[in-house]
Amino acid sequence: MLYVGVFVICLSVAHTGGTGLLAPRFPRPRGPVLRSHYSYDTKYFTQPVDHFSFTTPDTFDQRYLINRKYFKGNGGPIFFYTGNEGDITMFCENTGFMWDIAPKFKAMVVFAEHRYYGESMPYGKDSYKDPQHLGYLTAEQALADFARLVTHLKSSIPGTANSPVVAFGGSYGGMLAAWFRMKYPSSVLGSLAASAPVWQFEGLTPCGSSYSIITEDFQKGSPGCETHIRKSWDLLTQMGQTAAGREKLSSMFSLCSPLNTTTDVGTMSKWLLNTWFNLAMVNYPYPASFLEPLPAWPVKEVCSLITASSDVLEGIAAGATLYYNYTGQAACLNIEESAVSSLGDLGWSFQFCSEMTMPTCTDGIHDMFPPQPWNMTAYIIQCKSTWKVTPRPYWILQQFGGKNITAASNIIFSNGLLDPWSAGGVMESLSDSLVAITIADGAHHLDLRSSNPADPQSVIEAREQEVQIIREWLQDYYSKL
Amino acid sequence: MLYVGVFVICLSVAHTGGTGLLAPRFPRPRGPVLRSHYSYDTKYFTQPVDHFSFTTPDTFDQRYLINRKYFKGNGGPIFFYTGNEGDITMFCENTGFMWDIAPKFKAMVVFAEHRYYGESMPYGKDSYKDPQHLGYLTAEQALADFARLVTHLKSSIPGTANSPVVAFGGSYGGMLAAWFRMKYPSSVLGSLAASAPVWQFEGLTPCGSSYSIITEDFQKGSPGCETHIRKSWDLLTQMGQTAAGREKLSSMFSLCSPLNTTTDVGTMSKWLLNTWFNLAMVNYPYPASFLEPLPAWPVKEVCSLITASSDVLEGIAAGATLYYNYTGQAACLNIEESAVSSLGDLGWSFQFCSEMTMPTCTDGIHDMFPPQPWNMTAYIIQCKSTWKVTPRPYWILQQFGGKNITAASNIIFSNGLLDPWSAGGVMESLSDSLVAITIADGAHHLDLRSSNPADPQSVIEAREQEVQIIREWLQDYYSKL
Repeated sequence: MLYVGVFVICLSVAHTGGTGLLAPRFPRPRGPVLRSHYSYDTKYFTQPVDHFSFTTPDTFDQRYLINRKYFKGNGGPIFFYTGNEGDITMFCENTGFMWDIAPKFKAMVVFAEHRYYGESMPYGKDSYKDPQHLGYLTAEQALADFARLVTHLKSSIPGTANSPVVAFGGSYGGMLAAWFRMKYPSSVLGSLAASAPVWQFEGLTPCGSSYSIITEDFQKGSPGCETHIRKSWDLLTQMGQTAAGREKLSSMFSLCSPLNTTTDVGTMSKWLLNTWFNLAMVNYPYPASFLEPLPAWPVKEVCSLITASSDVLEGIAAGATLYYNYTGQAACLNIEESAVSSLGDLGWSFQFCSEMTMPTCTDGIHDMFPPQPWNMTAYIIQCKSTWKVTPRPYWILQQFGGKNITAASNIIFSNGLLDPWSAGGVMESLSDSLVAITIADGAHHLDLRSSNPADPQSVIEAREQEVQIIREWLQDYYSKL
Repeated sequence: MLYVGVFVICLSVAHTGGTGLLAPRFPRPRGPVLRSHYSYDTKYFTQPVDHFSFTTPDTFDQRYLINRKYFKGNGGPIFFYTGNEGDITMFCENTGFMWDIAPKFKAMVVFAEHRYYGESMPYGKDSYKDPQHLGYLTAEQALADFARLVTHLKSSIPGTANSPVVAFGGSYGGMLAAWFRMKYPSSVLGSLAASAPVWQFEGLTPCGSSYSIITEDFQKGSPGCETHIRKSWDLLTQMGQTAAGREKLSSMFSLCSPLNTTTDVGTMSKWLLNTWFNLAMVNYPYPASFLEPLPAWPVKEVCSLITASSDVLEGIAAGATLYYNYTGQAACLNIEESAVSSLGDLGWSFQFCSEMTMPTCTDGIHDMFPPQPWNMTAYIIQCKSTWKVTPRPYWILQQFGGKNITAASNIIFSNGLLDPWSAGGVMESLSDSLVAITIADGAHHLDLRSSNPADPQSVIEAREQEVQIIREWLQDYYSKL
């Protein structure tokens, strides 16, 4: 059930290429952050491929990672990461917050892999073959996997029978953490949903909001940065009209493959758009390698380079080069990265085309990008063509309640104000136990990362508040035992 | 998508014949109670066959019945019956409580049919063909149907955009009503779960409890009644040993087909056991025809006949005859009724054999029945053999939380103390908004029936309390709009 290639870097242009639609992409970490205390055993648990019907008896082995070092039995808590769209080891090794606080809570640490990612392939190498094999890749099935795994842990590990479970997740994993508590409150006491755009669905959030936030991030990056990027699209298109111009661009950006056609120039334009999106997400206050190796506050660094040049496109090229080649080890920049997509990206593309209809768009007015409206019809046509499935754009709203979620409890929604995805997040507390925490200087789920000397005060305080709330959940739970 | 035969009466022996297992059967009404104000339009709504995966694009038309006579628009409430295992028209016409109170709430009345019952056949006449067609018959899929139907109603009927939905259901329909609120609180404001044995699952309730309640019902029926029934099983077996005895029994009970073998006598024994179970469920305080036309307080009437005879088996025969032939129109009694099972019974048998593992048993000590332990292994073997599916006996516990349901809110669990299924019900309030109502003189969901001059005070008060709680839900809802 192993497959290779999941770590090939390829965010950027979505698999809706033909229509030019902006498909949402969450960042998936590139490689491990090695820390000695992130030690775990790798285990597998057999799950039904289909929890909700009896048309197939097929099963598969779900991978999970487990650390019992800090757990002292006696009903101590289980910290449970609800894995998202990628290899679980990467999330395990990039979610330092859980590791940082596990010792003080004497918590068991579990990272559960999401079906159809990493090693958790329901049909091995045939998992992505066709809708008959891939169709079981849904959030509902993943949540059911988590619920069964929790039961399995609590019925098989001594000292866990009364263990409360606290779920953690970031990005799509944060959405799953929130939904896990909503749908399976008997399995999970409470959830920290970090940077979870649970409201990035049709009718709940204006589709352009995330791009407006990116634009603000670059406005703050350095004076003129946003203006340069705003101007760059037309300049790029103009220069790309001629062979000489394309040659010049290819050279200026050190592209691995020269731009041969205006279509290539269009691809390059989308690649740049995604570059700025990704950069905004990982705008962390210290050097990090979540997607690419980057310096501290990389938006500011990139913006410095962009605005340092009087030639707009040369500035853009310098900025892009910093993003993709900060270490100086890349021989060239590859605008086709998304074309050699990994299974991880393919999986998310399928989810986007089935039930995770998360509209995004640009208008060039409230954001610095070329206008690209959301077109539901084009989306549906493209998804049918690509994946042979018909999207259900409104189902997630009905399944998880849309904005009407106050019947739920014990969920922390944390969002960084620098994070584009905060646009679709829960930014104000909905009740005493549905608590919104905003992190002024935070990018995409900064709070889930390990503590760092360069952490801004806002994330330090957010983590303290999160720890305090989790402590209260646990105290309340134990007092009722 | 129409099929015939669903109203053939056939409760009794479950489709686990070979093992002798006691499979739970809920009563499904026999025929309509004609009331002029039970008027409705019949409508259909297209549903995906599979809400939780994308392996099939198949859809089907779900039937629902709707009455808008009392609804005055302007966000008035929708009373929504979560249909259970049978033709929805029967539930519609036997749930008078909803019709009785709809005018005072200015409520729209909707009865939604459960997939694979009545006309709501996902694959027409092939729906029951094999697990590939029948496997989508699960409670989770049915709840998803309800959620989508609610959205459809509220988006298509003028004046309903802000309409709160209150769910009603009895028996398995009551379980669905409760689970609907637990899983889809954004779709339904609150639920009345009448006689819903949500805890009649492995490890939550002793398997023999329902038969103990039946035994108590017959003890109260008349002095000696329980003793006569308790003695009858051995006497039946003894007499059934010989051809002459079987002939005598066949004649005594006016059986349609004479008893030819000891196996037939075993079948007769199970048929009698189910007769007493059904009788206890419909022990209503006035003449009713829910399952069979019966007099008021039929347990008492049957017990009078049972104890009137000094010959135990003759008394039993007289009691059974009252149950099956109160109107005098049956030429004979048919112990094979379950063998000519309707699709409705088949459907429940499949559900029992897939995820609705509701163990029941007898021990002959705490109940008046021949000992029949619950045997999980035999159950699984038999279900695999009969339906070609492997049961998931613990899944419902994980899916719906078992006894750990206090994260939910706004559910009324009503139970009659005469009802065998109250054994698996929620009999004590779990929180301010998970309210248990017990009805001292109530059989199976008496409170859902139309008001009747013969109603005991306990059901009158229960209904008043239910109305008051629903009113409070609505007031709270409107105050927050």
